[in-house]
Amino acid sequence: MGTSLGGTHRLHFTEVGPRDGLQNLDLDLQTETKLALVERLLDADIDLIEATSMVSPRWVPKMADAEQLLSALVAARGHGVLRRLRVLVPNQRGLERALATGAVHVVANIGATESFNHANLRQGVEETLVELARMAELARAQGCTFDVGISCSFGCPFEGRVAPDRVAELADRLADLGVSEIGIADTIGVADPRQVSSLIEHLARSGVGAEQLALHLHDTRGMGLANALAAYESGILRFEGSVGGIGGCPFAPRATGNVCSEDLLHMLVRVGAETDVDLEGLCQAATYLEEVLDRPLPGRLYRAGIWEGPSSPA
Amino acid sequence: MGTSLGGTHRLHFTEVGPRDGLQNLDLDLQTETKLALVERLLDADIDLIEATSMVSPRWVPKMADAEQLLSALVAARGHGVLRRLRVLVPNQRGLERALATGAVHVVANIGATESFNHANLRQGVEETLVELARMAELARAQGCTFDVGISCSFGCPFEGRVAPDRVAELADRLADLGVSEIGIADTIGVADPRQVSSLIEHLARSGVGAEQLALHLHDTRGMGLANALAAYESGILRFEGSVGGIGGCPFAPRATGNVCSEDLLHMLVRVGAETDVDLEGLCQAATYLEEVLDRPLPGRLYRAGIWEGPSSPA
Repeated sequence: MGTSLGGTHRLHFTEVGPRDGLQNLDLDLQTETKLALVERLLDADIDLIEATSMVSPRWVPKMADAEQLLSALVAARGHGVLRRLRVLVPNQRGLERALATGAVHVVANIGATESFNHANLRQGVEETLVELARMAELARAQGCTFDVGISCSFGCPFEGRVAPDRVAELADRLADLGVSEIGIADTIGVADPRQVSSLIEHLARSGVGAEQLALHLHDTRGMGLANALAAYESGILRFEGSVGGIGGCPFAPRATGNVCSEDLLHMLVRVGAETDVDLEGLCQAATYLEEVLDRPLPGRLYRAGIWEGPSSPA
Repeated sequence: MGTSLGGTHRLHFTEVGPRDGLQNLDLDLQTETKLALVERLLDADIDLIEATSMVSPRWVPKMADAEQLLSALVAARGHGVLRRLRVLVPNQRGLERALATGAVHVVANIGATESFNHANLRQGVEETLVELARMAELARAQGCTFDVGISCSFGCPFEGRVAPDRVAELADRLADLGVSEIGIADTIGVADPRQVSSLIEHLARSGVGAEQLALHLHDTRGMGLANALAAYESGILRFEGSVGGIGGCPFAPRATGNVCSEDLLHMLVRVGAETDVDLEGLCQAATYLEEVLDRPLPGRLYRAGIWEGPSSPA
C-alpha cells in the first residue's frame, strides 16, 4: 500500500456538499443554514468549497440564492474568502454571473455521452466544447481558474458503460483549452476500483497525467472509498466529496450521495496522504448538518468518532 | 488491480448477519423471522451462514433460541442444511450444545489482547488457548470443522492499537491446534487498508498463509470495502459480512455494523473475483430485512440496485 509516486502525498480536497450534496437532497435549506454550513467547512480548513451553482433558478430553484450566499460569505469573511470557494457555472451566462460576484474559481461540466450532455445541458457535446472554449477564455481574462468535470466518466444512465477512449478524447480536448483541473466524475456511482485505475492509466497514456485530474465519486453502490483508494494508488491527489456523504442520485431514487468527505480524507490520511483539513472539524460540520436535516447522514466517521485508542501511539 | 495470485479467484463467503448482525441490533427478532432470513440467504447460495450462537442465554438473551432455530432449519431443509451453517461456540459447553444439534461447522473466538479476552470470555488468553485445544480435539473427533476468529486483530477498545506480532503469535498457535480457518477480525472497525495488507504479509512471513485466513471487517469508519479490497489484493479469498450491513459496535453506540455482504461481494466480483452467491437474491434478503426492521439498512447496493446499464455489455 501507499502510492508508488515519490515526493509529497499532499491532497487537494474540494468539498462539494453545499452544491452537489444539497442540490440532490429532497428538501431545501434556508440561505442562513447554507451560510452556517460553509462557515463550518471554512473553519475546518477545507482546501476549496464548491459553495453554490449559477444555474438558472427555473432549472434548480434550490440554488436561486447563489449570489445572496456568496455576498453573505464575503460580508462575514471578507473578499479573501472567494479564494477558497468554487462556483459551478453550467454555461456562459452562469460564468458571467459568477464573475460579477468576484468568484476566482469556477467549474463547468460536460457529459461523457451525447445523451447525458443533452439531458443535462440541452446541447450536443461539440456545442458544449465550443461554449467551454469561450468560457475558458473569459475566465482566464478575468484571472479566474476554470475547472471542468466530465460527468458519467464510467457509466451513463442512457448509454451504459462509457469507453475510456471517449473520456480520454474529451480530457485531451479540455487540456487543450487550458482547463485548470479536469474532474473525472462517477456521476451515477457505477465505477469499480479496477475501472478507476484503468481509466487513470488510460488518461496518462493519452497525455493527461494524474496531477491534472480530480476524482469525483459517488457511494451509490458502496464502492466510493475503495474507488478512492484505487485512484490514490494510481497517483491521484485531488478528490471531491460531500460532508456527511449527503446528496443522492437522480437516477437511483433511494441511493446515497457523494462519497463522504471526512470518511474519505480519514482513510487517505491513514494510508499515508497529507492534508491540512481538520477532520474533527469536518465531523462537527457533519453533526451540525445531521441536526439541521434531522436524520442520520450516510457518513460513518462522524458517528463513530476518530479512533486513537486509549493507549494508541497514533 | 487484480490479485497477484495466479489460478482461481474463487471466494468463500460466510454470512454472519443472523449471528453478529442481529446480536448487535437494538431489538430482538422472532425465531420465525430469523428462520425466514436464513432461508433467503440459503436461497441466495451463500457458501456458509453463521446462523446462531451457543452462548449462555444469561449473557446474550437474543440467541436463546439457538437450538430451536437449527431444528427449524433442519425440519424445513433436511439434515444436509447443516453443511451450509456455522454455529458460534464461545466455550466447550457451547461446542457440546452445537454438536448435540448435529452441527458440522463451528467457530470460536479469542481476543488478541488480554483485556478484550477477559471482557469477552472472562478468562486469560492462555486459558482460552487451553480450552480451544480441547474444543478443537472434540470437534475433530466428531467430524466437525473448527474455525477460530481473533477478535480485535487491529485495535482493542482497552489497549489501543494491536501489534501484528501479537496476532501472528496467536495465529501460529491456532494453526498448531489444527484450526480449519483463522479469522482476522476488525471487531471495533479501526483497521485501514495499509494495516490490512501489512498484517496479512506479516502473517504469511510467520507461516500462516492467506489461504488459511478469513477477514471479518466492520464498516465502523467507512473503510470496510477499501479494507476488503486491500485484503483481496493481498491474496485473501475468504470473507465474512452481514446482509444489509446490519449490526453495530458495542464500543461505538451510533456506529454501523459488519461490512455489508452484498456490497462487498459485488465489489470483489467487479475486480475479478468469482462467487456462486446470487447477488440479486442477497439484495432481496436485505430488502426483506429492511421491511422487518422497518428502517433503511446501512448497505448501499440493495437500495441502488445492481447496475448493468441500458446497453452495457455487463
